[in-house]
Amino acid sequence: MFSNRRTIRIEWGDCDPAGIVFYPRYFAMFDHSSVLLLEAALGRNKHELYKAYDFDGYPMVETRARFLIPTRYCDDVVIETTVTEVRRTSFHLQHRLMKDGALAVEGFESRVWIVRDQERPGRFKPQPIPPEIMARLSATAPP
Amino acid sequence: MFSNRRTIRIEWGDCDPAGIVFYPRYFAMFDHSSVLLLEAALGRNKHELYKAYDFDGYPMVETRARFLIPTRYCDDVVIETTVTEVRRTSFHLQHRLMKDGALAVEGFESRVWIVRDQERPGRFKPQPIPPEIMARLSATAPP
Amino acid sequence: MFSNRRTIRIEWGDCDPAGIVFYPRYFAMFDHSSVLLLEAALGRNKHELYKAYDFDGYPMVETRARFLIPTRYCDDVVIETTVTEVRRTSFHLQHRLMKDGALAVEGFESRVWIVRDQERPGRFKPQPIPPEIMARLSATAPP
Amino acid sequence: MFSNRRTIRIEWGDCDPAGIVFYPRYFAMFDHSSVLLLEAALGRNKHELYKAYDFDGYPMVETRARFLIPTRYCDDVVIETTVTEVRRTSFHLQHRLMKDGALAVEGFESRVWIVRDQERPGRFKPQPIPPEIMARLSATAPP
Repeated sequence: MFSNRRTIRIEWGDCDPAGIVFYPRYFAMFDHSSVLLLEAALGRNKHELYKAYDFDGYPMVETRARFLIPTRYCDDVVIETTVTEVRRTSFHLQHRLMKDGALAVEGFESRVWIVRDQERPGRFKPQPIPPEIMARLSATAPP
Repeated sequence: MFSNRRTIRIEWGDCDPAGIVFYPRYFAMFDHSSVLLLEAALGRNKHELYKAYDFDGYPMVETRARFLIPTRYCDDVVIETTVTEVRRTSFHLQHRLMKDGALAVEGFESRVWIVRDQERPGRFKPQPIPPEIMARLSATAPP
Repeated sequence: MFSNRRTIRIEWGDCDPAGIVFYPRYFAMFDHSSVLLLEAALGRNKHELYKAYDFDGYPMVETRARFLIPTRYCDDVVIETTVTEVRRTSFHLQHRLMKDGALAVEGFESRVWIVRDQERPGRFKPQPIPPEIMARLSATAPP
Repeated sequence: MFSNRRTIRIEWGDCDPAGIVFYPRYFAMFDHSSVLLLEAALGRNKHELYKAYDFDGYPMVETRARFLIPTRYCDDVVIETTVTEVRRTSFHLQHRLMKDGALAVEGFESRVWIVRDQERPGRFKPQPIPPEIMARLSATAPP
């Protein structure tokens, strides 16, 4: 399955009065990691995907995270993001945020390939993931 | 000129490791105060404005803030927002964030009434503010 | 078990280019709901808790959320937060974010009562929850 | 005067329903740029500064920004941060956020070197900036 990694610096503004990362910020980091993984896997950014495919995004339907080691302003952390499963209309990702080589935060997410639901304004409905997208997410190397 | 006020609670996640509000959060608070002022003044929310008028928003063109007294998790603060000037294509707002009756943060902003610029994709251009909008922003009472 | 509810307005700045809430924002909302539940249940805010007890916070150790219905700028949503379990060193909360009476987002969290670990600087360790705190979290009415 | 630059990618979660950066996010970017400039100029991070000097931070006292060109998800922007003035207890920084070589956002900030005010709990007071810090901020090269 496709995998991607990036190193980020924990910012002052990511942290709370206890001096540790305010945990919703981890989800913002993971979201961007997922966006970057899809770009790397598909060779296209989200704008280009919208143009190329009849779809309206890949929103989160379920996510889970475990917080093992606190991280702080000035920590350089590595986020490793991996596709763990690709299904007909959804795909699963795992994030491993490492600090000094140790697993600090682990995230799991399920996203669904969707289109706007014409029958229910403001709502979305799942759509089969195009075969070439499935293939790319399941590949181990970039296109 | 139109004025509006609201009381908000400083949240744990608004604050940084020094225990005080991370200042970009004040701008998020002010932005929502501006949205609420416009809703109160115009009697319509942003969705309804988009439908009623041929315009694409009222983005910030310039803002300024002074930070006088730190605020912290659990502080109840009052934000008083006032229209200070309405011009042909722009309007000015002032925010006064008060803690225990004392001015803690003061914000100023200039926003412009815009439409998408058909000649420069991805860019916007100013548009005259509709007369009834000008009148409402200059009024002292809600519609 | 103790339960608390509040109504909040989805803000423009909570939403992403798809027009729906950027999901990390839900966790920030849930975090504040948890803080408010603890204040209501214990009759003390976090500052007062720090003074009254030898402890250093109740950080998240695991959280999970399901996103069922998108919410948007201007939606008024209700968040209902309930203690679901109180254990020796940890407690569990559930959040139900309702839009027009329907469940839109559901969150689950496990938090642990901690003190700074003197033997491992920068790390924390679980601590038994004081009996009166356990009693209050398990009660159905405020003190 | 000391200057620093970095390139950042505008993230999906930085943007609002109009598809452009939610402006408070620019201040978070600028804040981190200021932190990085100080680290580069002083050769120490904020944790180390706290240990080395009897001071409690360099909070913002006034900031101003002009928004000239909207930026969007996937834009790679350059932020150039420069010390523009160093005074006895305060210093001034300028941020220039460039998109495709054009100035998109310009920020100005005044920060003050502070210590906790023992006579007014929860408040801070200005403190003379140590001479070596002044020298480093005024230098053009890193230590």
